[in-house]
Amino acid sequence: MVEAKADIALIGLAVMGQNLILNMDSKGFVVCAFNRTVEKVDQFLANEAKGTKVIGAKSLQDMVNKLKKPHKVMLLVKVCVKLLQAGFAVDEFVKKLIPLLEKGDIIIDGGNSQYTDTQKWCKQLNGTGIYYVGMGVSGGEDGARYGPSLMPGGNPEAWPHLKPIFQAISAKANDEPCCDWVGEDGAGHFVKMIHNGIEYGDMQLICETYHLMKDVLGLQQQEMASVFEEWNKGELDSFLIEITRDILNYKDKDGKELLPKIRDTAGQKGTGKWTGISALEYGVPVTLIGEAVFSRCLSALKDERVQASKVLPGPTYKFSGDKKEFLEHLRKALYASKIISYAQGFMLLREAAKANSWNLNYGSIALMWRGGCIIRSVFLGNIKDAFTKNPQLTNLLLDPFFTEHIKACHNSMRQVIAQAALSGVPTPAFSTALAFYDGYRSETLPANLLQAQRDYFGAHTYELLSKPGEFVHTNWTGHGGNVSASTYNN
Amino acid sequence: MVEAKADIALIGLAVMGQNLILNMDSKGFVVCAFNRTVEKVDQFLANEAKGTKVIGAKSLQDMVNKLKKPHKVMLLVKVCVKLLQAGFAVDEFVKKLIPLLEKGDIIIDGGNSQYTDTQKWCKQLNGTGIYYVGMGVSGGEDGARYGPSLMPGGNPEAWPHLKPIFQAISAKANDEPCCDWVGEDGAGHFVKMIHNGIEYGDMQLICETYHLMKDVLGLQQQEMASVFEEWNKGELDSFLIEITRDILNYKDKDGKELLPKIRDTAGQKGTGKWTGISALEYGVPVTLIGEAVFSRCLSALKDERVQASKVLPGPTYKFSGDKKEFLEHLRKALYASKIISYAQGFMLLREAAKANSWNLNYGSIALMWRGGCIIRSVFLGNIKDAFTKNPQLTNLLLDPFFTEHIKACHNSMRQVIAQAALSGVPTPAFSTALAFYDGYRSETLPANLLQAQRDYFGAHTYELLSKPGEFVHTNWTGHGGNVSASTYNN
Repeated sequence: MVEAKADIALIGLAVMGQNLILNMDSKGFVVCAFNRTVEKVDQFLANEAKGTKVIGAKSLQDMVNKLKKPHKVMLLVKVCVKLLQAGFAVDEFVKKLIPLLEKGDIIIDGGNSQYTDTQKWCKQLNGTGIYYVGMGVSGGEDGARYGPSLMPGGNPEAWPHLKPIFQAISAKANDEPCCDWVGEDGAGHFVKMIHNGIEYGDMQLICETYHLMKDVLGLQQQEMASVFEEWNKGELDSFLIEITRDILNYKDKDGKELLPKIRDTAGQKGTGKWTGISALEYGVPVTLIGEAVFSRCLSALKDERVQASKVLPGPTYKFSGDKKEFLEHLRKALYASKIISYAQGFMLLREAAKANSWNLNYGSIALMWRGGCIIRSVFLGNIKDAFTKNPQLTNLLLDPFFTEHIKACHNSMRQVIAQAALSGVPTPAFSTALAFYDGYRSETLPANLLQAQRDYFGAHTYELLSKPGEFVHTNWTGHGGNVSASTYNN
Repeated sequence: MVEAKADIALIGLAVMGQNLILNMDSKGFVVCAFNRTVEKVDQFLANEAKGTKVIGAKSLQDMVNKLKKPHKVMLLVKVCVKLLQAGFAVDEFVKKLIPLLEKGDIIIDGGNSQYTDTQKWCKQLNGTGIYYVGMGVSGGEDGARYGPSLMPGGNPEAWPHLKPIFQAISAKANDEPCCDWVGEDGAGHFVKMIHNGIEYGDMQLICETYHLMKDVLGLQQQEMASVFEEWNKGELDSFLIEITRDILNYKDKDGKELLPKIRDTAGQKGTGKWTGISALEYGVPVTLIGEAVFSRCLSALKDERVQASKVLPGPTYKFSGDKKEFLEHLRKALYASKIISYAQGFMLLREAAKANSWNLNYGSIALMWRGGCIIRSVFLGNIKDAFTKNPQLTNLLLDPFFTEHIKACHNSMRQVIAQAALSGVPTPAFSTALAFYDGYRSETLPANLLQAQRDYFGAHTYELLSKPGEFVHTNWTGHGGNVSASTYNN
C-alpha cells in the first residue's frame, strides 16, 4: 500500500510541465510527476527535480494511489499541432483517468485546449461527481517556473480545492495573485485564447514597428534597442517591449547580431487562429488579431514572396521627415493600436460571455493578465482600473482614461500609416487599428449602400433610418418580382 | 398511376426557386414544383407559373412519381440563419428523400450550404447508388430567372444527367455557359463560398469608395453616379459598379434620393463568414474578405457607434488636392484592390483543393463567375485568360497582365490610403489590400523578430536563414532551461 502524500499530480513533462512542478514544489506542495513515456519521469527526478520533494509515478494508477483526496490531476500534455487540434492528447488521458477517479476528484487541463473541448468535458462529466477544470496557463517557461498567469474555469465546485495551490504559484501584481476563478465550463480556456490572440496582435504591432524603424527610418539595431529601452520606461512598459530590447541587443557567438540571421517565417496554428474564428463566429470585429494571424500566414510563404519580390514593384518615395518626431508618432501609434486591440478582445469576451452565459469579471481578467503572462504590462493595470471603476463599461475606448489617450494618439496613427503606405512598408495591424477606430467613431458608415446593393440583386430588404426594425424591399430595376429572398443568404 | 413526365423537381418556392423553375421552363424542361407548405405550390401554379408547363406535387412521393428516371431532385430550401447553419433544412429534406429514391437518382442542393455538409452527404450516400450534388447558384433573383452562374460539384456520375439542363439555363459569357463541373464532393459549394466572399470584398471596396467620394471629396450623389457610370465603361466594368450607379441615381417616391435614408447596418451571417473561417483554417491570408466581413459586424453596432461618435475625436485635416486627380487614384486603387482580393481568393481555392484533393480548373471557375453572378465583370475574363495561359499559375499577381496593372496602380492605392488615414475615413479593405501587396512583394518580413520573441519566452525554436528546416533554440536570458516547448503552442 503506497502512502498517499502528494497534493497534486501533473502529467506531461515538457518544459512547461517540469517548470510548473518545480514552482509548486518551491511553494511547499508535494507533486507527483507522470509522463506518457515513463523514462522521462526518472530522468526528471534524477536531474531537474533532484533534491526536491517531487515524487514520480510508474503508471496512472500508481499516480492516483500517491495522491491525497480529493485526487487532483493536472494535464499539461502535448498539443497535437499536426492534427490542428489540441484536444486529441487530452481526450486520450481524460478517458484513461475517469475509471481511476472517484466522486469529488478533479481533472485540470492546463494545456492550450479549445474552450469547446473544455465545455464538452464539463458536460460529459456532469453528474459523475468528477469535476473538470480547463485552466489557461501563460508565461512561457520562465513564467511557469517563477510565477505564471493562471486562468481557471469549469466546475466551480473544484475551485476551493485548487485555489490554495494555484494562487500560491501564480505571479503577483501589487501583491494580488494573477489567478482567479474565471467562470463556468470553457470560460478559462476562452479567456486564455483571447490572451493569446492579443499576444499575437501585440507581437505583430512590435514587428511592424521594427520594420518601420528599419526600412523607413533606417535605424541600426543598437538605436532601435535604445528606443525600446526608453519606451519600456513609459506607458508601453511591458514584457514584450522588454524582450524586444534584449533580442535587438543579442549578439551571436560570432559577435554579430543574431536577429537578422533568423528566418522570417512564423507559425500560426493554434490559439490565435481560434480567436479569429471565434470573432467571426460571434460576429465581433476583432480585426487586429485577425490581421496578425494572417500576417503569420503570409510570412510562411517565403519562397513565393522571394519570387514576387523580383517582379512586383514598390514605391520610389523616401521618408524625409524628422526621425525623432516620427519615432514619437510611432510610439503613440503603437500605444493607440494596443488600446484598440485590447478593446476588440474585450468586445469578443463580452459577446462570448453573453452567448455562453458566463458571468465574467473583466477587471479580474485584466489583473490575471497584469503579471506573469506574455502580455503583462503596466497598461493592463489601467484596463483593470477602467473595469473596476465601471464593471458595465461597454467598450474600453469609452473609458475616460483611454478616451483621453486615444485623443492624444490618433493623429500619430494617421502619420505612421500614411508614411508606411507611401514608403511601401506593410502595416496590416496598424492600418486595421486605425480603420477600426475611424469606423467605430462613425455615426454613419457606408453600409447603407451595401444594404441597397443586397436588396437590388437579392431582394434581401433593408431598414430605413426613420423606421429601424421594419424591413422594406425596393423594386430598383422596375422589373423583377417583389418577393423577398429567403433562400439566399449572402 | 401518375404519368412521369417531369425532367427535374425543385423543392423550395421562395424567389430563387420560383425563378429557377421559370428559367428551366422557358428552356423547354418540364419542372415539378414542391414546397414545404404545399399551398404555396398552388399559389405559384396559379400566378407566377400560370401558362407554363410547370407541374406541382402534393407530397414528396407524388413529386418523385411525376419524375422521369433517373429522378433528379433539386433543393433550394430556406437557409436557417437563426441556427447559424444552412445545413439544417437541407438535411431534413435529404433524409425524407432517400427512402423515396432509387439507384442512379440524383439529389442536388442548390442552396448556400457549407461545403462540409455537402462532403458529409456525398460520403453518407456513397455506396447507396444515389448521387449527391452540391451546386452553388449565384445571380440573385434576376440571375435565377434569366441566367445564373451555376457551380456544381459532388458525385461526377451525376454530371452527364444534369449538364443539359444546367448549361441550358445558365448565363453565357461569349457563348460559353457559366456552368461547368467544378469537382468532387464539396468543391461546388466551396467555390460558391469563395465567390460570395469575393462578393463581400467587392461590395466593401465600393462602399469605401463611396465613403471617400462623399466625405473626402464632398461629391453629390449625382456626381458619384456619373463617375461610376464612367468607370463602368472601362476595366472596372461589372454588375456591382452598374447597380451602384443605379442606386445612386434612384429617387424615392418623394423625389429625394433613397440611399441616404437607408440604415447603415449590414447583416453578415453566412458565406462571407465561412470564407474567413476557411481562410484561417487553411492558413491562407485572405485578408480583404476578412476585413469586409468584420466591417459588416462593425456596421451592425449602430447604437454603440452613435455613442462613440460623441466622445472619440477625428482629425481636423481637410483634403485640399485636385478632385479629378484623386478620383483617378480612387479608380486605380479600387481596381488594384480587386486584383489583390481575387488573388487571395484563388490562393484559398488552391490550398483547399490541395487539402481535399480536388482537381480544380481555375480558368473554368473564372468563366463560371464571368457572367450571371453578382461578381460578373470584364475583369473575370482577364482572370480566365491568365489561368488559360498558365493553368499552374501560383498567384494572380504573378500573371504578366496583372503584374502590369498593379505596376500602374499601386501608387494610387498609397495616395488613397494616406488621404483616408489623414481625413479620418475608415478604409479597412483598401488598407489591407495594400498591406498584403507590400507584404507579398517583401523578400524579408519582420517575422524574424516574432520568431525570436517566441523562442525567447516559449523556447519555440526558430530557423536560421542559412539553415532552413533546422530548428534551433537560443538561451536568450542566460538562465532558464534549454528544453524546447512542446506543450505550448502560441
